[in-house]
Amino acid sequence: MLASLETPVPLVDLDRLEANLGRMASHADTLGLALRPHVKTHKTPWIAGEQLGRGAVGVTCATTAEAEVMAEVTGDILFAHPPVHPGKLARLLALPEVVSPMVGLDSEEAVRLLAAGARERGREVGVLVELDLGMRRVGAQNPQDAVRLARRIEGESHLRYAGVMFYPGHIKGPVSEQGPALERLRNDLGGVLHALDREGLPAGIVSGGSTPTAGRTGEVEGMTEMRPGTYVYNDRITVATGSCSRDDCALTVLATVVSTAVPGQAVVDAGTKALGREPFGDLAGFGELLDRPEVVVRAMSEEHGMLDLSETAWRPEVGEQVRIIPNHVCIVVHLNDLCVGVRGDRVERSWEVAARGRKFEVWGRMAFAQAGMSTGASSRVKRGI
Amino acid sequence: MLASLETPVPLVDLDRLEANLGRMASHADTLGLALRPHVKTHKTPWIAGEQLGRGAVGVTCATTAEAEVMAEVTGDILFAHPPVHPGKLARLLALPEVVSPMVGLDSEEAVRLLAAGARERGREVGVLVELDLGMRRVGAQNPQDAVRLARRIEGESHLRYAGVMFYPGHIKGPVSEQGPALERLRNDLGGVLHALDREGLPAGIVSGGSTPTAGRTGEVEGMTEMRPGTYVYNDRITVATGSCSRDDCALTVLATVVSTAVPGQAVVDAGTKALGREPFGDLAGFGELLDRPEVVVRAMSEEHGMLDLSETAWRPEVGEQVRIIPNHVCIVVHLNDLCVGVRGDRVERSWEVAARGRKFEVWGRMAFAQAGMSTGASSRVKRGI
Repeated sequence: MLASLETPVPLVDLDRLEANLGRMASHADTLGLALRPHVKTHKTPWIAGEQLGRGAVGVTCATTAEAEVMAEVTGDILFAHPPVHPGKLARLLALPEVVSPMVGLDSEEAVRLLAAGARERGREVGVLVELDLGMRRVGAQNPQDAVRLARRIEGESHLRYAGVMFYPGHIKGPVSEQGPALERLRNDLGGVLHALDREGLPAGIVSGGSTPTAGRTGEVEGMTEMRPGTYVYNDRITVATGSCSRDDCALTVLATVVSTAVPGQAVVDAGTKALGREPFGDLAGFGELLDRPEVVVRAMSEEHGMLDLSETAWRPEVGEQVRIIPNHVCIVVHLNDLCVGVRGDRVERSWEVAARGRKFEVWGRMAFAQAGMSTGASSRVKRGI
Repeated sequence: MLASLETPVPLVDLDRLEANLGRMASHADTLGLALRPHVKTHKTPWIAGEQLGRGAVGVTCATTAEAEVMAEVTGDILFAHPPVHPGKLARLLALPEVVSPMVGLDSEEAVRLLAAGARERGREVGVLVELDLGMRRVGAQNPQDAVRLARRIEGESHLRYAGVMFYPGHIKGPVSEQGPALERLRNDLGGVLHALDREGLPAGIVSGGSTPTAGRTGEVEGMTEMRPGTYVYNDRITVATGSCSRDDCALTVLATVVSTAVPGQAVVDAGTKALGREPFGDLAGFGELLDRPEVVVRAMSEEHGMLDLSETAWRPEVGEQVRIIPNHVCIVVHLNDLCVGVRGDRVERSWEVAARGRKFEVWGRMAFAQAGMSTGASSRVKRGI
């Protein structure tokens, strides 16, 4: 059955997917937290629908294509990336009217641009002040900056100050070792929330949480919601951090052995363009076989993956198929266009990765018109979905 | 002008692209070698057309989508990946009749499958025996294996033994230091060609060469053609190996600064999903700014790139745009859907990365039909182009 699917292709074990969806929904419920999953992992409206059906309050997006596609299934969309580009801002503000967009940002310039756009469109936008609680990526650096931004947002006619958000992406060690980092985060968050309260700017929403920290999110006081993404599929990294078991990995890449000519290895047709190059800590290689954890993808070219046979007596034949658990599943989904859902060896459904798109229309067309492009060339610039 | 393009987006400097195309065409001409460029770098029929217009004899492909798309512009297609999967084989053999497909392979099983498919379709397929000349990825390991495969191919009614191919992807150090590795390769190749001659199986085509080795390909006796790919755009890696100058890098990723909150860095909206994570040797980071080589992309999340400001006095504003030269341009093209061609700051054209596709139809549809899928789900499985 699986042998007839052209490789490489991502396979999703639907039983595992459903179990993962249910487990995180229950966990959020137990903690009394709202669940607003990040769709970057699956980029697929029907899976977002399954998340919403299990109680998710809305979704989190990082690209305009994700937001546009997810508007099919929910009106509650958090855009967790400062939309400071006029093209992105225009696309966000053009989302269907049933959508109540919310944005996370960390600069006065982002507030200014968003306020101007929202005013011009006559549209209200919720805003979360993004906080840096140790990741050192984006986010207000201290309580004073957070207060200043919140006040600035509250002063804008079409912006609604809705609270704060943070991403604990720096905490990705084993769950049992997250204590000290979580304590620092809890203290920093407490300081910001206290300052906001004192200034009459209490945070309605306090949004945080990732898949690796989901198990200990209950220890962070003041949070109202969590935004894990990877949990729907899981991968070698979430297993390595102890946030799930190996049997919770729902997505594998089906690949075909194309060469066994070089002794000690077998070459499959999944390389960096299907699996992604995502090394992690002391994890060996870039993926491992579902059936044979001792066999890892040692090296890759763009369309070749080199399976290391040094730890196994298994010697595959040319034409044999394997299923690879990738290191980082979010990249795998973005690299591919199609996923196939299976139960056991039975193919049950397939779907396009509808929100992987990296095209744009509105601003592209304007640019091309200015440059005097031919209609033919311009018409090739399609919508990013 | 560029400011109106939604970021992140790959920009191609058309003057540089044209110069790169011309330079390699002249180089192959000077060496008296046929040029059969690998399209994996651009995945775009119009650029393949430009290569053919400058004298390329055909193209090299690694995926079925690439082969199908390139059939629009040439009938001479080398599929440089053993098509041992029945789905891939079926797609290759279904290419338009004007196409004379040629395949590289390294196993008896691959010959058997290809011969059976070609016979069934009544179609002749040229075959190159792939040799391992030091890369240790795929390829016949010694002259005896090469002779055995060549003889096997010659004995098949619908296969045409056309010669040998190799990929010197293990030689990627500085051009000036390639001598010893090239000498070993030359000796190994000589041994294989001698054995084939002696057995009455002379190689008509001897195909090799990559962008990093292009400058010294003339030193390898017996070659008849070269298959560089990256040279159309170049990148930080081809600059680092000395195979081009920095001014030959034709593709940059246009990105917008979205946050400067964390001191010492600026965050842009191009992360691993637009730039790719392709570390190389002692090259710092994952990309560098076109205008400021001292500023590198130090770290990435999926949609965030962290610019390291430690070596510059420049302090960008939120909203400012930058152009990033990526480490490995072939991955960037595959991650995106759209490229924009510019001359200076003027947008001249845009095109879809038409052959990036990772969808499939024939075998997918069959699989779904067997599983009793609904028409709605099945109709979502579109052609991989």
